[in-house]
Amino acid sequence: MAKGITKREDNYSQWYNDIVNKADLAENSAVRGSMVIKPYGYAIWEKIQSVLDKMFKDTGHSNAYFPLFIPKSFFSKEANHVDGFAKECAVVTHYRLKNDENGKGIVVDEDAKLEEELIVRPTSETIIWHSYKKWIQSYRDLPLLINQWANVVRWEMRTRLFLRTSEFLWQEGHTAHATKQEAIDETKQMINIYADFAENWLAVPVRKGTKSDSERFAGALETYAIEALMQDGKALQAGTSHFLGQNFAKAFDVKFADKNGKLEYVWATSWGVSTRLMGALIMAHSDDNGLILPPKLAPIQVVIVPIYKGNDQLQAISEKANIIKKQLQDKGISVKFDNRDSYKPGWKFAEYELKGVPVRIGIGPRDLENNTLEIARRDTLTKEVISLDNIEEYIEELLEKIQDNIYQKALSFRKENTHIVDTYEEFKEILEKKGGFIEAHWDGTEETEQKIKDETKATIRCIPIDTLDDPGICMVTGKPSKKRVLFAKAY
Amino acid sequence: MAKGITKREDNYSQWYNDIVNKADLAENSAVRGSMVIKPYGYAIWEKIQSVLDKMFKDTGHSNAYFPLFIPKSFFSKEANHVDGFAKECAVVTHYRLKNDENGKGIVVDEDAKLEEELIVRPTSETIIWHSYKKWIQSYRDLPLLINQWANVVRWEMRTRLFLRTSEFLWQEGHTAHATKQEAIDETKQMINIYADFAENWLAVPVRKGTKSDSERFAGALETYAIEALMQDGKALQAGTSHFLGQNFAKAFDVKFADKNGKLEYVWATSWGVSTRLMGALIMAHSDDNGLILPPKLAPIQVVIVPIYKGNDQLQAISEKANIIKKQLQDKGISVKFDNRDSYKPGWKFAEYELKGVPVRIGIGPRDLENNTLEIARRDTLTKEVISLDNIEEYIEELLEKIQDNIYQKALSFRKENTHIVDTYEEFKEILEKKGGFIEAHWDGTEETEQKIKDETKATIRCIPIDTLDDPGICMVTGKPSKKRVLFAKAY
Repeated sequence: MAKGITKREDNYSQWYNDIVNKADLAENSAVRGSMVIKPYGYAIWEKIQSVLDKMFKDTGHSNAYFPLFIPKSFFSKEANHVDGFAKECAVVTHYRLKNDENGKGIVVDEDAKLEEELIVRPTSETIIWHSYKKWIQSYRDLPLLINQWANVVRWEMRTRLFLRTSEFLWQEGHTAHATKQEAIDETKQMINIYADFAENWLAVPVRKGTKSDSERFAGALETYAIEALMQDGKALQAGTSHFLGQNFAKAFDVKFADKNGKLEYVWATSWGVSTRLMGALIMAHSDDNGLILPPKLAPIQVVIVPIYKGNDQLQAISEKANIIKKQLQDKGISVKFDNRDSYKPGWKFAEYELKGVPVRIGIGPRDLENNTLEIARRDTLTKEVISLDNIEEYIEELLEKIQDNIYQKALSFRKENTHIVDTYEEFKEILEKKGGFIEAHWDGTEETEQKIKDETKATIRCIPIDTLDDPGICMVTGKPSKKRVLFAKAY
Repeated sequence: MAKGITKREDNYSQWYNDIVNKADLAENSAVRGSMVIKPYGYAIWEKIQSVLDKMFKDTGHSNAYFPLFIPKSFFSKEANHVDGFAKECAVVTHYRLKNDENGKGIVVDEDAKLEEELIVRPTSETIIWHSYKKWIQSYRDLPLLINQWANVVRWEMRTRLFLRTSEFLWQEGHTAHATKQEAIDETKQMINIYADFAENWLAVPVRKGTKSDSERFAGALETYAIEALMQDGKALQAGTSHFLGQNFAKAFDVKFADKNGKLEYVWATSWGVSTRLMGALIMAHSDDNGLILPPKLAPIQVVIVPIYKGNDQLQAISEKANIIKKQLQDKGISVKFDNRDSYKPGWKFAEYELKGVPVRIGIGPRDLENNTLEIARRDTLTKEVISLDNIEEYIEELLEKIQDNIYQKALSFRKENTHIVDTYEEFKEILEKKGGFIEAHWDGTEETEQKIKDETKATIRCIPIDTLDDPGICMVTGKPSKKRVLFAKAY
């Protein structure tokens, strides 16, 4: 047990909590269900943000900011939407505290009750479409391609750091279009961007597909999702993109004049990913020694640890280390030289292993003599001694190799844990014994879906769009099915 | 009146609102006192964020994220702090809505009442110091240098877009130190960073100083502020940095073991700037034609407008324009080529003038023949025709010239509107007739300060730290004064 980390095979859930805590990513706060994202965890989130933000801007989106509070009445305007969110809302009812007259300390001032309660946004469709009504008059105002980085609150009863918290950070895109097809194209474009990000940055392979009716976003006509497989065989929904049809345009009466002056309702999409991605990142790659980070998202990509006795050795090593650091930084690689005297090299090795720094360089007096370095890879836990010549090219390639290796490992794991199943018996057996993704035929009805969920706790993660049609019969009812859908137990 | 903008001399306050609205910076939302920051306004805020964020990181700070909600009881732990913020808090009391049994729509579910009310953070000292107690044990954990970008809520009764809104965006730095001196140094370092940013990026000259007792942050021992002068002669506080002493460490029992193992309370600072900076930016520079932006913070630094008849001309001009665009972009200049056919050049000229784009390039058929361009400066409203040769160097220098000119203009305005005053009569007369900054002697007492405020509405903006001691006598009481302090009516 490295530094007090529970082993995955002993208790996967505790292992996850241990990693989040010991690698200094996040912790529970004094407010039930709200987390504190610690500097090291937040640095990873900042990398995620900056990459996604660029992807959004490169596809023509701009950022904006809408209010945290939403008037209660706005929620009722879209019927499905309010059903989906009313049960988990934080409600602001007063706007002042006061000193209690009976000396009981600070109390809510009952004289400061709001006429209409305000909801802390669980998602912003309603408040945003209220603005869009003012912004959209003509086809010239379309498309409107806006994104917001924000905090949202959904009052969850069972919370887990990053995976499910009452307050979380996310981005929410909200777009308006003149035609149905353009809105559908946007919905697909964004799920493809999420998939690209998941695979090429998070190094997490994902399955893309649409949600079944029961799992669709409250207010959407179609929800696209990317689904990732975690090491315990459970699925994690890592991003969604919704085609909203004209539902919100109708709820907020948003029409535009087309080129002929004819008034039409606007077509809409919304799409989002959240700090939940941090959970996927942690659970997909890490091991019993701690966090494993893909180099492209690691706040520190390379750490240099000096191994020395006495100040003279440290000084000689530091000189060399600072040259290497500079060479790597010139290549755009983020490097930390940890020359703290208050910790021993062994302690530092364990610390950076725990924190998932992809590459560790050790330099001792013998390395100075031999013009060598010791390079340790976090992903494979292997070490090698190499020559200092062309170190920057070597490390640059190594980081790419590690990024790829982490992805390939996750991909192999998913292949090994994706099962094609024809009978409900086999389905139940695999779910119980192995878990993982299961591809099976389903008759397309909500009843069958619910029966499977009740009996096995597995849900339809998505109806894949990355596979061809392949007719068959439902494993439960024997009725016809167009293609296999993806089942799993999920986070 | 350009595009419906009220003139400053007619109604300064309406002029401000017109600029904010017509330049598409922000608008009021459906929630009283909360604003919507529109994409163009938000793009400026993103520039502000990215510059400040780099300044913070370059001085060793890391970002993190703490909860939006603060348990009510936390506020009571620091006596001054609760007095300062209790009267303007949004209070969450319930966590669920439900369908009304009598068919009155969606109502608050009274069964879902929180045991302890949650306050939407007006500032985060309390929730952050609750975490710091867990994070700080030894001198090795210090200094702790953390910043947070977040939304906060202070229930304001009178709101103005950017200047005073119930919800606003800001950054709040919260640092912990082993010694008093180190904390004081940090407080000063951060006010210097804010001043540097204000002057060299916003192009707004500021006076630095400390606040009087009555204007100090609730819970601080010393508050440093930067004060800017707006075109209507009123002051605007643009940033504050607080030395908190050991107040929060004592309130949350945060001690550290020094090198000898002795336990000591930790020393603290906090510092912040907000979307209010947008208000300063707008009011300091803009004119009756619209917004004027310093080039360093302009989302679009150069706009190219084609002047043409027919498609052939447009095509020939576009070819040239795209080459120029590329040349400028290679220099790191942000350029928009507005080739929209749905708007006329005159309309576009007015639009970019309104939006404060620093440089406008016009290209017509004659320019193609003569190898020339028409360059218009937003700050001076001057135009000149120049040769296309070395256009990129020319524009690069021009942007620097504009940045400097805007700053110098604001500096001259401040000089002309800073008055040194010896008698209370003169003080009142200048305040009434001219406004501006007034430097006058004050006896250092809260009574005199309050009397001046009651009688003139002017407040002590700061006790300058950028001037030498210069003993005199208080203009009101005749009692001794060490140096002149800075008075003004303020936003």
